Formats: sequence, C-alpha cells, structure tokens
Amino acid sequence: MASNGDAPSSAAPAASPAGAPARDAPAGALPAGDPTVVVTPWEVSGIVDYTKLIQQFGSSPLTPELVARLERVTGRPAHHFLRRGIYFSHRDVDKMLDLHEAGQKFYLYTGRGPSSASLHLGHLTPFMFTKYLQDAFDAVVVIQLTNDEKFLFSKETKRPLEEFTRLGRENAKDIIACGFNPEKTFMFMDTDYIGSLYPNVLRIQRAVTYNQVKGIFGFTDSDNIGKHGFPAVQAAPCLSSSFPVLFGGRTDVPCVVPCAIDQDPYFRMTRDVTPKLGARKPALLHSKFFPALQGDNTKMSASDASSAIYLDDSGKVVKKKINKHAFSGGGATVEEHRAKGANVDVDIPYRYLTFFLDDDEELDRIRTEYAAGRMLTGEIKAALIAVLTPLVEGHQARRAAVTDEVIDQFMAVRPMQL
Amino acid sequence: MASNGDAPSSAAPAASPAGAPARDAPAGALPAGDPTVVVTPWEVSGIVDYTKLIQQFGSSPLTPELVARLERVTGRPAHHFLRRGIYFSHRDVDKMLDLHEAGQKFYLYTGRGPSSASLHLGHLTPFMFTKYLQDAFDAVVVIQLTNDEKFLFSKETKRPLEEFTRLGRENAKDIIACGFNPEKTFMFMDTDYIGSLYPNVLRIQRAVTYNQVKGIFGFTDSDNIGKHGFPAVQAAPCLSSSFPVLFGGRTDVPCVVPCAIDQDPYFRMTRDVTPKLGARKPALLHSKFFPALQGDNTKMSASDASSAIYLDDSGKVVKKKINKHAFSGGGATVEEHRAKGANVDVDIPYRYLTFFLDDDEELDRIRTEYAAGRMLTGEIKAALIAVLTPLVEGHQARRAAVTDEVIDQFMAVRPMQL
Repeated sequence: MASNGDAPSSAAPAASPAGAPARDAPAGALPAGDPTVVVTPWEVSGIVDYTKLIQQFGSSPLTPELVARLERVTGRPAHHFLRRGIYFSHRDVDKMLDLHEAGQKFYLYTGRGPSSASLHLGHLTPFMFTKYLQDAFDAVVVIQLTNDEKFLFSKETKRPLEEFTRLGRENAKDIIACGFNPEKTFMFMDTDYIGSLYPNVLRIQRAVTYNQVKGIFGFTDSDNIGKHGFPAVQAAPCLSSSFPVLFGGRTDVPCVVPCAIDQDPYFRMTRDVTPKLGARKPALLHSKFFPALQGDNTKMSASDASSAIYLDDSGKVVKKKINKHAFSGGGATVEEHRAKGANVDVDIPYRYLTFFLDDDEELDRIRTEYAAGRMLTGEIKAALIAVLTPLVEGHQARRAAVTDEVIDQFMAVRPMQL
Repeated sequence: MASNGDAPSSAAPAASPAGAPARDAPAGALPAGDPTVVVTPWEVSGIVDYTKLIQQFGSSPLTPELVARLERVTGRPAHHFLRRGIYFSHRDVDKMLDLHEAGQKFYLYTGRGPSSASLHLGHLTPFMFTKYLQDAFDAVVVIQLTNDEKFLFSKETKRPLEEFTRLGRENAKDIIACGFNPEKTFMFMDTDYIGSLYPNVLRIQRAVTYNQVKGIFGFTDSDNIGKHGFPAVQAAPCLSSSFPVLFGGRTDVPCVVPCAIDQDPYFRMTRDVTPKLGARKPALLHSKFFPALQGDNTKMSASDASSAIYLDDSGKVVKKKINKHAFSGGGATVEEHRAKGANVDVDIPYRYLTFFLDDDEELDRIRTEYAAGRMLTGEIKAALIAVLTPLVEGHQARRAAVTDEVIDQFMAVRPMQL
C-alpha cells in the first residue's frame, strides 16, 4: 500500500449520489507522461492523473454502472470509497460479478508489507474496504504479510529479518482490529507460509524472465537477487492452489484483489502468467492514494511522525497533528477566506473527510460551506478531529483486545467455507 | 553433480601409495584459459586441466600430507578416491580437521538435482564418498534434493514440478541404498523443506547482487527470475541455522561439502556471503568428473542410455554397455596392442576401475599388464564387468528394500546427535 499520492476531492464530490461517482481527470493533475510522476510499488511521486493512469496501465474505469451493479448483487449500498471514486479502476470485476451471480464464489486477497509497528490512516483504507467486501459478499479473505519483501527491499541493509517479522505481528493486530470475520479470514506471514506458496512461486518464476520484471518494476543489475524473484511471492496467493487446506485442494476459486494502484504492476505480471499455468486471472479493484498530512507531493514517512496520523496516536496527538500539520486549502486570512472560500481539492482536512466521513449529506454540507468561505479552516479541522478521534480510539480499543492467541487463530492453516 | 568431464588415470596412478596421489596436470589437458573448456554447474565440456582449475577457482590442492592427516585423525585408511586423487582439491578442510581435533564436530552437506529416475555411476560417486566421510567422522549428513532447481533450469519448460519431485523420491532410494546411517542422515526435498531454509535463503539473497551471480554463473537477462535467486537455496544448507530442529538451534556447527568441482561456484558465492551473515564459511572437498562411457569430451546424457551405466541396468546390460560402448585405449589390433600396449589415460575400463576397484595392488597389476600389452582390451573389460556387476546388483538389492516409509524416515525433521 503506497503512502503518498493524490486523491483529489474534485473526483469525489460529496454531492454525487451513491453509484454515480465523478471520475474525470482530477484537478491539478499534470499531463500524462509527465516524467515527474512515478507510480511503482516502491515509489509514488508527483501529482498523479488517475485517468491517464488507467490508460497507461490498461485497466478499466470503475463506472457508476458497475458500482450500481455491485449494489444490486450484494443487496447493500456501495461503500463510500466506491461512491466517491476512491476506488476508481478495476480489472475483470464485471466477470467476477457474473461468476458470483452464477453461484461461483471468489475469495479476496490483500496484504501488507510490514515496515512500521503501527499502521497509519493510509494503510488502514484497503483493509476497511476489504472488510466491507468480505461482509458484502460473505467472502473468504487471505491477507499476506510480506516480511520477506520488506527485508529484501529495505534500504536499511543491516536490519534483521526478525525485525520485519515482529512488525508483521504488530500489523496483524491493526488488521484484525478492522473487524475481519475470524471464520473466513486467513492471515499469513510469508516466512511461515512459504512452504505452501513455494510450488506456485516456482511455477510463476519459471514463466517470467528478468527482462520482463526489469520492464515492469524497474529492477537493476545491482539489485539483490531476492528482489528479482519476489514478485512471484506476491503473485502466488492469486492462485487458489496456494491454499490447499483452505480451499480443499480446489484450483479454480476466483480471486479478487483490492489494492492501491501502485501495486498493479505485480498483478499485471500475475495476469500475464496465470493463463500459462492454467489458472484464472485475478480481478483487481484499484484505489487512489491517500495523501500525506502536508498535502500533495509530500510523503507519509515512518521517519517523520508528523507526516501521517498513526493508529496508535492518542486523541491529543491526532488533534495536534491536524491543527498543526494538515495542509489547508483555506484562505491565508479569515478575511480572504470569507471572501474567496477554500480550495477543497488541495485541502487535507476535507480530503481526509472524504475517506472517513461516511455521511454523504454531511460531507456535502461541509464541502459547500467550506468552499463558500462560510466554514473556517479551524472548523473543518474540528470536524475532521471529531471523525478521527473516535475512529482512532475505537481502533485502539479493538486492537488492545487482539492477543497473540487471536493472531494465531487468524494464522492457523484451516479449511474454510467459501 | 556433473556427469561429464575428465578423470584421467595419469593423475591417479594405481601404484601410488595411500596418501600420496599424483596430482600434476593430467595427460591430454589443454592449456589453461582454453576457451573450449567450460566448467559451470550446468555445463562441463572440454578436457579439463585440474591443476589450472585449482588456480582459476582459487582452491587448494588436496595434498598427500592432508590426506595422511585425515587418516591419522579418523584412524582409518583414506578412501581410494583420496588415495588416487579423484578428490583433488579443497577449501578449509585443514581448518575443519583442527576443529574436529578440538572436539567441534562438523556436518556434511551434499545433494542431488533430480533429473533422471535412476542415478548412473557418476552420480553415485559423491554419495559413496560422503558415506565414507560419515563413517570416518561419525558425522551428521544433510542431503538436499533440488527439485526446484531442476524445474527452474530444465530446458523442457512444460515439464511439471511434480515430475521433478517424483524423480527426487526415486533418487532418494538410490542415495539411501548407498548405506547412509539413518540415525545421522537427514534428506530433504526443497519444496518440502523450504519453510526452514527460507530465512537463510532471504539473508543470502539480500547479500548478493545480480551482477555477482551473472559473473559467477553466467546468467542472462532472458533467464527466468527463479534462476537468479536459486543459488541462495543451494547455499542455505551450509548454515547450521537452516536446521534448527536437527542441531537444536545451534548456529555454529561447521559444514563440509563434498562435491564435484563444477558445483564450486555455488560455494564460492556462499563463502563470500557467510561472513557477512556472521556464519562460518563451509569447507569443500572437490572431485574430478566421472567420464562418459564413450570417453573424454563425450557426455553422459539421460537421453542416450548408452552413454552411461545406470544403477538400474541389469548385469546383462552392464556387460553389453562396457563391451560395446566403453572407449578403449588399447591397440587397434591384437598385434598392435601386444606390441605397443594400451594408453590407460584414455581407457574407460581402466579409469572406471580407478573409481570402483578398491584394491590398490590389483589395480596396479591391471595397469601394468594392460599398459604393457600383456592384458587385452577384452580382459580389462571383463575385469571391470566383474567389479561393476556385483556393485550394481548389490545396489539394486539394497534399493529394492528402500520403501516409502524408509524415505519418510530419512526425511523426517528430527533432532540429531552431532
């Protein structure tokens, strides 16, 4: 999950009715092919034009029609991430809905590269969304903790593997605290589960050349040799045969991957390989990036605690970070603000509300009032604090209840009802 | 284990006393740096100059003094592979003997890439030698079956992984039939045991760049991405921490690897990496190559059954292969042979006898008589048949007794007494 990027509110108007998210080019985006824009699993920088990214990656826009169909199939309202175009792109989700309607259930696959002990708000969003999908489709979820990836790709080359394993266990608590159904959720640390993944890892590795991964991921010859092979480890959980116990040996269970769009290269590669292995291509749901507190073109960084709100931040710290660091689209002075209103497209408090305030009417009201200059920056920050404080504190309470035994239950290799 | 190459008898005179193998450049060897000579784990071709190879690889000659010391330390005569210079090169074996004398026991590590259902005589030799070392040092042996390697490197890109696993199980029978001590031998299929190897595989992979493996193994950009990472899988068993159950979590047990010298690149890489991981460099014992039936510069090939004697060949087939295909250094006619004698350096029956006839006096007698033309080609072939028939038939009887249960016992992950 990338920690930086752009989720402009112009593409996610609070006023848009459920099932009809706006999805044109976001405000402020640079032209396609801008060399300052980089989107890879390890780096997201520049102001991303998501429409251009869809063309560039060859995915499909997640249309209002598809969102509406998803509502019909699940019999429940779409998640606000769908209503607001935060999940904006997909591959083959229409086919997965066909299969689902024909009675063939899919499983969901998501993951986390453990690089910090606590998740921040940006890390949380794909798990919130996957939890919604689990509930909506009553689906099995598999969650990969890539301690191997973080070990191989970390710039801190002295950091031991055990450290990433420890972070993975910590992250497991945050993930479980999102409310996944323990009966239908399997979480695994790569170094624990590699024995089951390895046959498919090998099959995928044999089908992909270094020239291909160089093109897809930008690897170089001075990279360590673990990096070159790793994409197959992230690809393998897309094959249901990687979970022989979970799925009783079934090799044909379809897989749906919700992820930030920076992870797409892994799955483009996977979708290229799976047909050669006689397996089904995974479907994908792509999200935009969650912006850093300081705004677009700044990074959420583990080494700069003020760049993000972490799930272990106290209510006090949340309040302080928002008031002190959240980039504002409001006027420079109260007078100017009253006269010209706020630019909500770049305003972090507003944009965070699009992620965490479920109430469309209230969000619309805030947008209108703030854009018109009737609501002040201090007031929208207070509104965000009012949303985030219970969210973070509730999360902390649920996380505190996640014992080692609970993690072990989620990580137990066991049969599951599809 | 390479299946082709040159083990010239001139470097292994039967007359040389135990502990004093001749080790000069073998007859017929081309000058060093000859571009027609290739020695990699996947290709051995050309007439190899073993003395030059020692210089080129930076290993040390296995001197008569070291062999004599090995005899003193073990209190038993050196194996004829040592007496005759078939094992001719080493790295750090002297240090391992120091440790052994100081009471620190090492373990032995060898392996097999399962590419054929039956082993041939050339495949057998490292296991014969490892079994001798096990007995001489009362040492734990770990045996890696690299079904992953053969899957990734096979030119038959449609051949399924399961096929290499099946061949590995077949090979396990041949290996067990060599007489390894079941109390002190752990055999593992990579796909079964990767869960335990993986942490060290990752540590090794992180410490090696693609530039390095390109230089060592000659990989290219159009190779599949599994190949680039595989050397770490072969390296990992050199670290005793890869066997936490066997060695009770000890990370400091020294490792000695007997192998054909074509495998040295793996262990040069390993010895480069281990100090960075705080682990001890493995010691190595290098053998020359076992020649194909048709003689030097021909290959033992699974697709040409007449190129090698397989351990499942019947006595009749062994006899026929030797009489029909074994390259002879004898005279073209009986008259010429009587007059000029045989060239034992290129004579396959004689060279095979250096591998399989333990009796130094008898081998010396045969060499003298044959070289002088008093023994005929048919007679030396009969002598070889008389040695190999009971060897192969005895092996077959022992192999027949190796049930799946026996394999599973050798493969059980269990504590071992060093």
